[in-house]
Amino acid sequence: MMSAPLQIGLVLFPRVTQLDFTGPLQVFSSLPGATVHLIWKRIEPVPSDSVLTLTPTVSFADCPQLDVICVPGGVGTDDMVNDEEMLAFLRRQAEGAKYITSVCTGSLVLGAAGLLQGYRAATHWTAMDFLSAFGAVPTKTRVCIDRNRVTGGGVTAGIDFALTLVSLLHDRRTAEAIQLRLEYNPAPPFNSGSPDTAPPDVLAFMKDRIAAAQIRRGEMIDRAAARLS
Amino acid sequence: MMSAPLQIGLVLFPRVTQLDFTGPLQVFSSLPGATVHLIWKRIEPVPSDSVLTLTPTVSFADCPQLDVICVPGGVGTDDMVNDEEMLAFLRRQAEGAKYITSVCTGSLVLGAAGLLQGYRAATHWTAMDFLSAFGAVPTKTRVCIDRNRVTGGGVTAGIDFALTLVSLLHDRRTAEAIQLRLEYNPAPPFNSGSPDTAPPDVLAFMKDRIAAAQIRRGEMIDRAAARLS
Repeated sequence: MMSAPLQIGLVLFPRVTQLDFTGPLQVFSSLPGATVHLIWKRIEPVPSDSVLTLTPTVSFADCPQLDVICVPGGVGTDDMVNDEEMLAFLRRQAEGAKYITSVCTGSLVLGAAGLLQGYRAATHWTAMDFLSAFGAVPTKTRVCIDRNRVTGGGVTAGIDFALTLVSLLHDRRTAEAIQLRLEYNPAPPFNSGSPDTAPPDVLAFMKDRIAAAQIRRGEMIDRAAARLS
Repeated sequence: MMSAPLQIGLVLFPRVTQLDFTGPLQVFSSLPGATVHLIWKRIEPVPSDSVLTLTPTVSFADCPQLDVICVPGGVGTDDMVNDEEMLAFLRRQAEGAKYITSVCTGSLVLGAAGLLQGYRAATHWTAMDFLSAFGAVPTKTRVCIDRNRVTGGGVTAGIDFALTLVSLLHDRRTAEAIQLRLEYNPAPPFNSGSPDTAPPDVLAFMKDRIAAAQIRRGEMIDRAAARLS
């Protein structure tokens, strides 16, 4: 098999939720014949949402045409939905990409780039109501596949998303081998991973804690949606 | 509550499996009142097992006494089990730490430091047979708690491990709130995450693929065990 390597790119940005992309990165890094790129405007360290600083491997300008473009999420997407340089990069890559994908609130950025109009899409449970501003159909699921848009739910859904995508890009056996290698046989110690199962007081606490951020997010989404129309 | 911040440290090293520590890092970063350190010999970028380069926040020499010390895994642990500087750092920190922990093959490094003698411990499924060389009792589970040793299974078990540890460090409600935030409601697309459930041909493929590496690992473990006795 002498085919050209599959080009997979994950975009970075300040205040990305690092697990949104380190989960898929771990999966994609085990894919035979794939080259993985970490992409940002410039090759300089990018602060994540934690103490981990992220180092891009290629700039927007130097990035080759990707087969898979993936946008992770995090509070930083509130800025990215109005970042013309990011949106232009995504639109340009989307023209030639085989799969246009996201994890968590990364789908809001795809939406702001006009890439989800008429598509079903997943996102973090706290962001579900914002997707329709971009003409997307909010879909409550871990992994949402609609034609060549593959979008994951919140944060840890990125692992389910990436294994699913590997099965589409390659085959099921390859995805299963990666799952075995990553011992992805999850056993959450509690049953609080979704608003449907979390204890009511935990859900109320989280909703209260993000209330102000949700208002700010709504304003950013409104600006982004107005620009798009 | 004016208590001193909880000091949580994750050690880095070349060829660490990045998801082994980025999973727990995401969980610990949401823990109120905790300071998280990424620790290596020097403050210089460390190559992971993928294109992601990791930047430590503190050196071994400058690291404060930790409440939680955590060793992630990866092929790089084959070198770390014989790395005197790493082993001395772990032994020094272990004297004052509240919890001594690991994910994946990180438990082999704890073992090589003499910190698991007489303790039950978990590790990656491919490394289970090596734990007894260090006097540990190999335990097939996602999260293994034996007194103040808390060890996780392979790679993704780090998320289960970290949520469990947060419930011990803080309380169950805090762990549940973090689980909800990370939407940790896993739905693996395949059932291949353990040698017990993987399709036989997938398991055979993986065993064949790691055969040479297992021999090398055995040699490194033998050297480490001989040094310890």
